[in-house]
Amino acid sequence: MLTDQQIQQAIDLKTKPLGALGALETLAARLCRLQQNLSPVILKPTVMVFAGDHGLANEGVSPYPQEVTWQMVMNFLQGGAAINVFSRQQGLDLKVIDSGVNFNFESHPDLLDRKVAMGTESALQGPAMTAEQMIQAVSAGRLLVKDLWEAGSNCICLGEMGIGNTSSAALLMSRLLNLPLNVCVGRGAGSNDAQLDKKLAILESTQTQHALAETPEAILAAVGGFEIAMMIGAILEASKYKMIIVVDGFITTSAVIVAKAMAQDGGEQLMDCCVFAHCSDEQGHRLMLDALQAEPLLNLDMRLGEGSGAALAMSLVQSAAAFMRDMASFDSAGVSNKQDNTQSLTS
Amino acid sequence: MLTDQQIQQAIDLKTKPLGALGALETLAARLCRLQQNLSPVILKPTVMVFAGDHGLANEGVSPYPQEVTWQMVMNFLQGGAAINVFSRQQGLDLKVIDSGVNFNFESHPDLLDRKVAMGTESALQGPAMTAEQMIQAVSAGRLLVKDLWEAGSNCICLGEMGIGNTSSAALLMSRLLNLPLNVCVGRGAGSNDAQLDKKLAILESTQTQHALAETPEAILAAVGGFEIAMMIGAILEASKYKMIIVVDGFITTSAVIVAKAMAQDGGEQLMDCCVFAHCSDEQGHRLMLDALQAEPLLNLDMRLGEGSGAALAMSLVQSAAAFMRDMASFDSAGVSNKQDNTQSLTS
Repeated sequence: MLTDQQIQQAIDLKTKPLGALGALETLAARLCRLQQNLSPVILKPTVMVFAGDHGLANEGVSPYPQEVTWQMVMNFLQGGAAINVFSRQQGLDLKVIDSGVNFNFESHPDLLDRKVAMGTESALQGPAMTAEQMIQAVSAGRLLVKDLWEAGSNCICLGEMGIGNTSSAALLMSRLLNLPLNVCVGRGAGSNDAQLDKKLAILESTQTQHALAETPEAILAAVGGFEIAMMIGAILEASKYKMIIVVDGFITTSAVIVAKAMAQDGGEQLMDCCVFAHCSDEQGHRLMLDALQAEPLLNLDMRLGEGSGAALAMSLVQSAAAFMRDMASFDSAGVSNKQDNTQSLTS
Repeated sequence: MLTDQQIQQAIDLKTKPLGALGALETLAARLCRLQQNLSPVILKPTVMVFAGDHGLANEGVSPYPQEVTWQMVMNFLQGGAAINVFSRQQGLDLKVIDSGVNFNFESHPDLLDRKVAMGTESALQGPAMTAEQMIQAVSAGRLLVKDLWEAGSNCICLGEMGIGNTSSAALLMSRLLNLPLNVCVGRGAGSNDAQLDKKLAILESTQTQHALAETPEAILAAVGGFEIAMMIGAILEASKYKMIIVVDGFITTSAVIVAKAMAQDGGEQLMDCCVFAHCSDEQGHRLMLDALQAEPLLNLDMRLGEGSGAALAMSLVQSAAAFMRDMASFDSAGVSNKQDNTQSLTS
């Protein structure tokens, strides 16, 4: 068992001033701890983009029509979306999961059919999904990650696509973090002021409708969506194996919040596995990160989803692992370490 | 001639909500403008690490001994430093330039001998370099970049190594930005409180000594160093060709400040070429970036130098170019664009 002290010592012997690699050192220490190895490696890093439709989308919470969900899935499969570009650049495997899109896709090697239904029901009218559907979705997420782990991957990047899913994420955030909805609801894919007011009003009504849901599972079933539930399963399973879980933005982080609430150990191991890729421009994300005491790697004012922020941050995850593996130590490089204070003050 | 409007339109037609790629969009627009091309490319990106010694190092401004400069150059040539690891990871060419290290190196394919002298003189005792040496260093930097450009590179990452060079950088910053030394001087490679007080006292005396230097050239010659002067030449030359200049941390940014003051057009074109990689943990760097109205890409609390931050940020520069080149448009992907407001508000 590697102690934190042994890990810190290995970092401090690298040819650089103490702490000079900043956040990369913190990340590297985490990789070493998770892998119990002073030369951490990232194996078969895989972007999982979970796609699902939301009944709420038809209540007017988004300026985009619901059909954009399946159209963007087609775009992913054709290689033309941002997540395709960034995954290719970073050498990441990309899997698109149909968690519950309101469209029948033809089979495609990069598309995994785990469709629970043709989208959730509208949470404004009743529960978004049944308890059975919720369990089916979480289990599907678990099994997908189990397969990846058994195929030799130790790192997943989570992303999602689903018109209306910032609404589900805001509802989950509000209930699980006990925050008023108006600080959780944001502009999503691009609502203007009037659309934002309308979205908030719809979500206030939706929340009232589900006031009796108490457990994370019940709240999840009440407000959806399938892609979020599947990400929750993926997170729970990945943390079992101490895989690195690179978390994208607002919606993916809502899945972490629910998974943490579901975890038996209070979510400690799960949080140790999660690398928060970036702080999204979606207003609630900073509050989510603060509540999780998470320091994101990037702050680029992005708000795209798809796992795009996670894919970009993978470069830094790789850098953290690489400096641990490949940097010389003061000894091996023959570099003098810092003079002790007495010497330097009198030199 | 591509207009800013044409560039913005090309960005806005990509399959993503308006502005959803945040800072990457701003960067992509800049790449398009510099290259006058809606499909920008990064050609032969090259890390240039300029190394030089400082007479001031022997006055006690650094807790590290001067010999660490040449030892770290050897580490660069052996491939064991952080900049080696990150350059390999990012596929960057790495050139180490001996601008004036107090050591005689054997020849090495990655080492370019542009030694002006065996380190600068102590700026506490007199000018760090002569006017002739300053001109020689700036010219050498220019010629190195001219060679790279002619060999087909359009992107350089600037980094440096030189025990004592945060002192030179702080002195340049203080004079050129007209800021008191105590906000410019930081802990460098790792001074403790007592060492920091001593460093500040030495630099206050040094500054008094050179109070009559007025022009950027005279101030540069007065406080050094050779590696900073060579970076200034590199920046001036690269901006002539509208190359992308990825700027590392505190010391490299001090070179940008001097180069901007030297530039004939007030430095507008030069600033357009500069991509500020990160905000360093060295205390003065944030103030430098604010003075330049520069938004750094990364905030990782790093303070290593060597061009390490620039190399890490290259991944984001590549991402910005890649999404412009390779992302589908709404039309080509068959994705519905946002409904107009009337529709979505009544749907």
